[in-house]
Amino acid sequence: MYKTLSSFIEKLDSTVSNLYQKDFLLTWEKSYGELETILTLAEALKYLRDHNISARCFDSGLAISQFRDNSTRTRFSFASAANLLGLAVQDLDEGKSQIAHGETVRETSAMISFLSDIIGIRDDMFLGEGNAYMREVGAALDEAFADGVLPQRPGIINLQCDIDHPTQSMADLLHLKTQFGSLENLKGKKIAMTWAYSPSYGKPLSVPQGIIGLMTRFGMQVDLAYPEGYGLIPEVAEQAGKQADESGGNFRIVNSMEEAFQDADIVYPKSWAPFHVMKRRTEFLRKNDHDALKGLEKECLANNARFKGWECTEEKMKLTRQGKALYLHCLPADISGVSCREGEVAATVFERYRVPLYKQAGFKPYIIAAMMLANRFENPADVLHIMAEDKVKRRM
Amino acid sequence: MYKTLSSFIEKLDSTVSNLYQKDFLLTWEKSYGELETILTLAEALKYLRDHNISARCFDSGLAISQFRDNSTRTRFSFASAANLLGLAVQDLDEGKSQIAHGETVRETSAMISFLSDIIGIRDDMFLGEGNAYMREVGAALDEAFADGVLPQRPGIINLQCDIDHPTQSMADLLHLKTQFGSLENLKGKKIAMTWAYSPSYGKPLSVPQGIIGLMTRFGMQVDLAYPEGYGLIPEVAEQAGKQADESGGNFRIVNSMEEAFQDADIVYPKSWAPFHVMKRRTEFLRKNDHDALKGLEKECLANNARFKGWECTEEKMKLTRQGKALYLHCLPADISGVSCREGEVAATVFERYRVPLYKQAGFKPYIIAAMMLANRFENPADVLHIMAEDKVKRRM
Amino acid sequence: MYKTLSSFIEKLDSTVSNLYQKDFLLTWEKSYGELETILTLAEALKYLRDHNISARCFDSGLAISQFRDNSTRTRFSFASAANLLGLAVQDLDEGKSQIAHGETVRETSAMISFLSDIIGIRDDMFLGEGNAYMREVGAALDEAFADGVLPQRPGIINLQCDIDHPTQSMADLLHLKTQFGSLENLKGKKIAMTWAYSPSYGKPLSVPQGIIGLMTRFGMQVDLAYPEGYGLIPEVAEQAGKQADESGGNFRIVNSMEEAFQDADIVYPKSWAPFHVMKRRTEFLRKNDHDALKGLEKECLANNARFKGWECTEEKMKLTRQGKALYLHCLPADISGVSCREGEVAATVFERYRVPLYKQAGFKPYIIAAMMLANRFENPADVLHIMAEDKVKRRM
Repeated sequence: MYKTLSSFIEKLDSTVSNLYQKDFLLTWEKSYGELETILTLAEALKYLRDHNISARCFDSGLAISQFRDNSTRTRFSFASAANLLGLAVQDLDEGKSQIAHGETVRETSAMISFLSDIIGIRDDMFLGEGNAYMREVGAALDEAFADGVLPQRPGIINLQCDIDHPTQSMADLLHLKTQFGSLENLKGKKIAMTWAYSPSYGKPLSVPQGIIGLMTRFGMQVDLAYPEGYGLIPEVAEQAGKQADESGGNFRIVNSMEEAFQDADIVYPKSWAPFHVMKRRTEFLRKNDHDALKGLEKECLANNARFKGWECTEEKMKLTRQGKALYLHCLPADISGVSCREGEVAATVFERYRVPLYKQAGFKPYIIAAMMLANRFENPADVLHIMAEDKVKRRM
Repeated sequence: MYKTLSSFIEKLDSTVSNLYQKDFLLTWEKSYGELETILTLAEALKYLRDHNISARCFDSGLAISQFRDNSTRTRFSFASAANLLGLAVQDLDEGKSQIAHGETVRETSAMISFLSDIIGIRDDMFLGEGNAYMREVGAALDEAFADGVLPQRPGIINLQCDIDHPTQSMADLLHLKTQFGSLENLKGKKIAMTWAYSPSYGKPLSVPQGIIGLMTRFGMQVDLAYPEGYGLIPEVAEQAGKQADESGGNFRIVNSMEEAFQDADIVYPKSWAPFHVMKRRTEFLRKNDHDALKGLEKECLANNARFKGWECTEEKMKLTRQGKALYLHCLPADISGVSCREGEVAATVFERYRVPLYKQAGFKPYIIAAMMLANRFENPADVLHIMAEDKVKRRM
Repeated sequence: MYKTLSSFIEKLDSTVSNLYQKDFLLTWEKSYGELETILTLAEALKYLRDHNISARCFDSGLAISQFRDNSTRTRFSFASAANLLGLAVQDLDEGKSQIAHGETVRETSAMISFLSDIIGIRDDMFLGEGNAYMREVGAALDEAFADGVLPQRPGIINLQCDIDHPTQSMADLLHLKTQFGSLENLKGKKIAMTWAYSPSYGKPLSVPQGIIGLMTRFGMQVDLAYPEGYGLIPEVAEQAGKQADESGGNFRIVNSMEEAFQDADIVYPKSWAPFHVMKRRTEFLRKNDHDALKGLEKECLANNARFKGWECTEEKMKLTRQGKALYLHCLPADISGVSCREGEVAATVFERYRVPLYKQAGFKPYIIAAMMLANRFENPADVLHIMAEDKVKRRM
């Protein structure tokens, strides 16, 4: 057992990484080594837990969660991660409709942080708002720490914003690493991140953006597919292109699900609202224009309905490499005939991939715990070393 | 002190029990030895706490609570039990009106369980639903564990369903054991589980069912009394009769509170809604037929009002053995002239039994903790042994 | 490092104090030595935390919070304090509009306390209610403990009532002690506790009452200033006067902000609703008379508007000692041109004092933790001694 832990510790020791006291807001702000560090730490923490060894590195301390949108699985992942390391969760519940800014953010950020180690934020409802809010909180914490108001500067973890969903995409990446054996093995693999039909409206862009923003780092062939008009934030697509060039991979946008699925090793069919719709939505919300919002919703659902063909069917799965591409989803999926009449994926396809899908989700608590640990400890390898030496049982 | 703990450990060692990794859903699914094990463990945990010895057997871990109906005392009992053993509580709050089934239950059950040890569920609003829901969650967990999705299979504890309320009835039993000296001493004792008038409507059947389903195991004379038409689930009454036969006790249904009180050693007067009303109510709820529901409520309250004589008065108490039967209630009671004009019990009766009633309630946290511990540890006696040896102080 | 802790321990050893198992409801019920003990303990706990030494004195246990009014900073302070000492927080959420009394309070108090160490209560909405409610809970706990229902009697901490806000005023006092070097140095200092204009209505009286009820203990010159008709509870003002006489200080009421600010060393401009208005409001609330409540609000806001001149401006600050009085506020403040058009304080004044204000707020978690510790341990110095010896790291 110690042998495996040793290999994680060696891996951490040999990886250049600078995550200590840095917020985790966008994966593309992190170096390759830093992403590797998070994956290694997550694997090590999972290994410890699976072998009933305590991963508590905090005797006490708070992890604050602020969910400005509903969440079950991320909420439980965050709570699990905090608990695994010894932190207690305290919710900051302002009511999700409120977009607080300025003085309130500056003051509240300091007030909740006197004895806090981590602040996890989900704020994905409004384009241009979520990530900006996280940075505003971060700036307030920097200021409070510099002024001596806070004895330490809590780390921020992005639990989904308007731009990225790094705890999701990193959990997805760890799943791929596990399924394909190594990050190196992902080189040259084709992943199809494609829009899919859903009978709902206003789903955030952060998952597809997170996927193209992360998978292009590993030399993969990344196809982003959507019906005309369903584009993502242009800057994120640009970033993906640049990264693909640098990593020896490829990034292209196509307007056909079939084209993206062709010879794909991995498919990720998932609905989202078009960028320009989300922009208009945010404007109407700012103006509190409910009639315009209703109109927009109606218009959007009608437009969506033109693309019911964008479903991940058995036929389309046959187009993938040997008909056996790995199917991914961040869950919950809109399953045709199960959770809705017509949706993102055929029931038989979903059913065949249920087990790997759930395993994919099971990485998230460890990814979040890894982000927490890397933020609070300058040398995570030392922390693992102590845990491996002490071998405190998690369960008596 | 160690002497007392030793006796608990010996008792556990000599009791045949198979509670490890088994959900606790209905007391009548558990063997006599298993019920004894829960009682012994609860007593041991109370003993440890009272002597300021830590009962933490978890260094970290989550206990999930899902309350699909309001609760204060069970909520606090669950939180106390989890905390006593070292688990942190995480609420799963779906909104209580929602009856989720199928895919959602299957998926959510796995998603909340990656690092969870215990799931406590209260779901008592709809006849035919609550216990079935718990089994659905259990099946989903079994599947996820078998598929390798979950590294462990969390245990489920029934915090009250439509059929049974085992944490209540077991706490009641521990109270009786304490009051009468031993389980053996309960043999031949008469307990009157009787309906009582309340100005409210729709109270679950789980408490009276839980009581007749448990107390018939111990050779007691169990009288179930209710006005005609206020019957319980027929299968539970049948089960009670069968158990009374096996245990050398007696079970009968009478339609008079006085008859049940006659020479009773214990009385448990408590309101509930008739079985057939609860059935109609569930049908109307499924159809979302609010007019029918209103009509049913009106009809029921009118019918209840015919039985205002079903009150636990001083006069009726005089009928009991030497006029001194032990009065039980799961609390809160509808006390005549205090919490309502006319209710389940006269104020003077309630007042005289307030202290034992509160002690009765005080067993619940320990019963829940015992169920948690027995579910997670193959050999609870060993766990107690370690606690007795280590003697870690609960409070410094 | 041990030297500093030793000095705290010596200080505690030499201070006569009787806080063990006593609720903390009003500062003026506590002796000078007891107030000193809380301050010393709070400083010691902060010192431990700042030096990464664990202050856990509980292996497990619950701290219950009951917020009958909204709160962010006190909620987080309470959670931080509980966590620092090793207690888990469990919320008792009855809905804030409900004023439960009598049987319900008596019973609920026992039911939530079987394994609880601390109960923190905020109940500040209704004059004549909040403090009375806390005492009612206390009496119920006394009774349950005397009757053997509870194995221990949890301590109550007033997290703000209609009369006092002791965790706030004690945090303010620790701030003053830190700023001026010692309690002795506060002798002769002038503090202006003054009403200030706010565009809102119905703010509790507990902060100004808490300040005059505490600061008059330390030989300070306490000026309470408000427009005619904005008086506090008369008994509290009387108490303040008596205390000022005893401590060699001074207490007077003036009807001019300028007069209070003149040569003040400390200013605390803060809005509140007049005593007689709060009394009428409570009456209307009891009668559920919504029209009368609306009328009262309108009348009050109109009356408030006559006193927009009561703003802490740069001009008024110039009146204070060398123009440099320390500005205090319990936060959040109504800042003119920032959080409202016209408010309690000019933006430039607030901005200049932002850092000390936030530091003032940062003492609250430690004050609450000190109150918890003093309530649960007969000899807090011994507890600190063990912590200093063991030197368990808070963070690995």
